[in-house]
Amino acid sequence: MTETLALAKALIARRSLTPDDAGCQEILIERLEKLGFTIERMRFGNVDNFWARRGINAPVVVFAGHTDVVPSGPVESWFSPPFEPTIRDEMLFGRGAADMKTSIAAFITAIEAFVEDHPQHDGSIALLITSDEEGVAVDGTVRVVEALQARGETLDYCIVGEPTSNKLVGDMIKNGRRGSLNGTLVVQGVQGHIAYPHLVKNPIHMVSPAIAELATTVWDEGNEYFPPTSWQISNMNGGTGATNVVPGTVDILFNFRFSTASTELELKNRVHAILDKHGVKYDLLWELSGKPYITPKGNLVEAISRAIEQSYGITPELSTSGGTSDGRFIADICAQVIEFGPLNATIHKLNECVAVADIEPLKLTYQRTLENLLCK
Amino acid sequence: MTETLALAKALIARRSLTPDDAGCQEILIERLEKLGFTIERMRFGNVDNFWARRGINAPVVVFAGHTDVVPSGPVESWFSPPFEPTIRDEMLFGRGAADMKTSIAAFITAIEAFVEDHPQHDGSIALLITSDEEGVAVDGTVRVVEALQARGETLDYCIVGEPTSNKLVGDMIKNGRRGSLNGTLVVQGVQGHIAYPHLVKNPIHMVSPAIAELATTVWDEGNEYFPPTSWQISNMNGGTGATNVVPGTVDILFNFRFSTASTELELKNRVHAILDKHGVKYDLLWELSGKPYITPKGNLVEAISRAIEQSYGITPELSTSGGTSDGRFIADICAQVIEFGPLNATIHKLNECVAVADIEPLKLTYQRTLENLLCK
Repeated sequence: MTETLALAKALIARRSLTPDDAGCQEILIERLEKLGFTIERMRFGNVDNFWARRGINAPVVVFAGHTDVVPSGPVESWFSPPFEPTIRDEMLFGRGAADMKTSIAAFITAIEAFVEDHPQHDGSIALLITSDEEGVAVDGTVRVVEALQARGETLDYCIVGEPTSNKLVGDMIKNGRRGSLNGTLVVQGVQGHIAYPHLVKNPIHMVSPAIAELATTVWDEGNEYFPPTSWQISNMNGGTGATNVVPGTVDILFNFRFSTASTELELKNRVHAILDKHGVKYDLLWELSGKPYITPKGNLVEAISRAIEQSYGITPELSTSGGTSDGRFIADICAQVIEFGPLNATIHKLNECVAVADIEPLKLTYQRTLENLLCK
Repeated sequence: MTETLALAKALIARRSLTPDDAGCQEILIERLEKLGFTIERMRFGNVDNFWARRGINAPVVVFAGHTDVVPSGPVESWFSPPFEPTIRDEMLFGRGAADMKTSIAAFITAIEAFVEDHPQHDGSIALLITSDEEGVAVDGTVRVVEALQARGETLDYCIVGEPTSNKLVGDMIKNGRRGSLNGTLVVQGVQGHIAYPHLVKNPIHMVSPAIAELATTVWDEGNEYFPPTSWQISNMNGGTGATNVVPGTVDILFNFRFSTASTELELKNRVHAILDKHGVKYDLLWELSGKPYITPKGNLVEAISRAIEQSYGITPELSTSGGTSDGRFIADICAQVIEFGPLNATIHKLNECVAVADIEPLKLTYQRTLENLLCK
């Protein structure tokens, strides 16, 4: 058994249901301290986080990740207990195997190997580890970043260990994420009996032309890294259940996934303009659930792409697709952030797993990325 | 105490919660048999109905009504027990006082008075009484009408005793009702994660332009007796509750209140054409909950309007507003159907009541209507 596999199993064996770290971080800290890392435990609320750094010079290369996992779902539907790491058919099974305890284990063993080879490396190596990524994510990475920002600390390169691989390990890295902007729209009408249409104002009727326009609006064309911004209604509910009553209001939840070709403010203003143009009477609450970020082609994309080619023999595609990640927070203090990790096919599902054969190449990828960035 | 008031009280004292007649009809039948009526009890399912007729010649003048009542609501909130008829402040209180046991009592005493004055009257007098008007209305008037229709019986004039008066007794008669046509529309899209808009088809987006067009369509201009046909959505629901999922379907309930200026088939065809034009993929179930009917100005409107003027001193307005009534069924075999009865302010509410002073004029109105129609 490799060091990486052994560590991944040790982490999976800890029942770290978000936001409970369940002792995972102390395992990592013990090994990092042996390598000469300076450790800062940052507990916010009931969330364990830590920041670890080796070296005082630039560039600073950060590995970022989370020790918390999502619930297992029905235990009896797993091949083996979700918190008992089990190898079966050359696969390592367990909750967190792909998202993202194997990545964290690979961070540690990659750093150990790198430091052994290059004890006097250039720059600095750091880790930013949280146990609140799968939950509300308010006392995790965002708080650590705020603390680092408050003391003026800047990072140069960050690798987030999220499972970004799609069909083959190494086929995709994320070099950015779209922003996510939610709207809670309540359209105001006047309720009444359906037999007396002159006494009602039907909010569903009133908002329909506006929805039709919002749904067909081209918000932007996207850019080199992003697809066009998209707007979608996720929920629309109005009505009393009775078939003879026109409802007084209709509730609509919508969401923008937006590229860096649009700003949050522009999108909000354009939505208000369309609703106002159609004479809709409404209340609208906005919630920015994720800012967009992008890491253009450059040193980090180059370094990790080359490392992936060396380790897996394939050239990764750059992508900004999918949901949000903690990369959005780190991008505030770090110009280059990318995400790379195992296959994402089984994450959050029953029988989450990674192929044992994919684990050492992952460690090697992270190790070679360090070499590419810190050994000139 | 007048005969009409005494009979109204006897009927109110029977707890005839729809569809239970609770013996009301036997009270009526006993009195009608004394007048020489031929009685046909027509029990369908668990619903008591009867058809009574005196005479064999045309014209046939029918009084139609129901003995069933809606539930009382919380008994402790009534001034007096809902099934104990009580006079207080010159008002007769009790469930069914206005809808429509007082009307039925007035039918009987009006007929008794008329027959006493005109034992050899022209034409025929008939009663169509059901105990299933307030409920599902499937084994009531509609079944009696089917039975009469099956044997080729035709009616000439029908007076339904529904409480049509608005501010003053006699101020309004209904000479028709709009039709009511319900649609249950399920718009088909493709569900998916909101972050992958190219993989979804948002049914709310797809249907919005069609709703916008349906909501602004002029279906007809109405006519002399009817306001224009109206189309309203009563309920629209789509979404999983999650803010990151585009729903696969959206459910819409809509309703036409339609005049005789449009037909059911025309309206259906136009809805399908609009949905199809906008490329909506959908399932649509139709349910006709009431056909429209109209009784143009003529013998019956004239006869009852004159009777109201003589009894209450006011000229009634013709109206086709409001919901549906059993008039829609009777109109299938009777060219002239009107509805007239007490004030509708308290129907279906707590402390349902009629003014005692309004009761004898109601009997007189029905009696004079018979005279106007059957005594040339």
